[in-house]
Amino acid sequence: MRVLGVDPGLTRCGIGVVEQVPGRKPVFVAAGVVRTPMNGAHEQRLLAIEQGITQAVEFYQPDAIAVERAFAQQNLHSVAGTIQAAGIAMLVAARLGIPVTLHTPTEVKAAVTGSGRADKAQIGAMVVRILGLTEAPKPADAADAVALALCHLWRGGATSKYALLEATMKRQQQQGKVAK
Amino acid sequence: MRVLGVDPGLTRCGIGVVEQVPGRKPVFVAAGVVRTPMNGAHEQRLLAIEQGITQAVEFYQPDAIAVERAFAQQNLHSVAGTIQAAGIAMLVAARLGIPVTLHTPTEVKAAVTGSGRADKAQIGAMVVRILGLTEAPKPADAADAVALALCHLWRGGATSKYALLEATMKRQQQQGKVAK
Repeated sequence: MRVLGVDPGLTRCGIGVVEQVPGRKPVFVAAGVVRTPMNGAHEQRLLAIEQGITQAVEFYQPDAIAVERAFAQQNLHSVAGTIQAAGIAMLVAARLGIPVTLHTPTEVKAAVTGSGRADKAQIGAMVVRILGLTEAPKPADAADAVALALCHLWRGGATSKYALLEATMKRQQQQGKVAK
Repeated sequence: MRVLGVDPGLTRCGIGVVEQVPGRKPVFVAAGVVRTPMNGAHEQRLLAIEQGITQAVEFYQPDAIAVERAFAQQNLHSVAGTIQAAGIAMLVAARLGIPVTLHTPTEVKAAVTGSGRADKAQIGAMVVRILGLTEAPKPADAADAVALALCHLWRGGATSKYALLEATMKRQQQQGKVAK
């Protein structure tokens, strides 16, 4: 099962992809960010976010998309872009027919580090350890998106071993078709 | 100059279209709502909003799009869908290359009724009077979207008579091409 995580943001929208075959450890596939210029027109930035997420989803062909749920910790003006980026990620998932799930930051932290109050450095360190990387994906938004994808594997997809097996078989069949 | 107004919402997204030729009164073109089921999946509702707005914009071919700016008057959970619908309207505008502007509810009320604290009934009544209709567009979200389009004509487009003239000439040229 391959999961694409989206850490939504207007300036930096993190994207992380991980894959897990039943009974094996999760494997790192990719991580990066879609950047938009802070002085750009808001609508052009939203369009760039949509195009970046769409390209990543079409390229990595995930079985599921996980999006971080935005909260009103800041004032609404600063969080509006984040909420809209999250909405665009959900929109892209619906358009491409890929199941999408939201996870809260606390759920992601707890899933990856065991503590709902872990900081960015702790999340990055655990992502490195779990996936056997040499260093954490950068910037932090990319590492957060990878942590989100891992959270989804453990909370949703991979806790249901049947769903994981089914997604893996489907992927192998598709890859078989491509190979022929 | 033809303006398409969007009163963003997840359950009912109002759309109103008005047109004005320089020196003439604004003319009503169309009003309606994009509805999505309250028990639908959030991502499917966002997709339906996007498709509905895109269809309206492609059909009515506005020169400008005006979107009501959402505010944190309610809690963030209930306003998140509205903020995302507004983002989708901006996204559609950017994708189709149509200029998009935000107006606050207070600006819309003041432009149409003369008072920033007018209620829905007063807005509906003024929309009827300004456009010479027999009754207000229904539901209220459709009337609000028409008011927003009128606000845009007066605040943005039509206060710049040159922009209004230019858009009208462009439209007449296009219609001329279609007629040939």
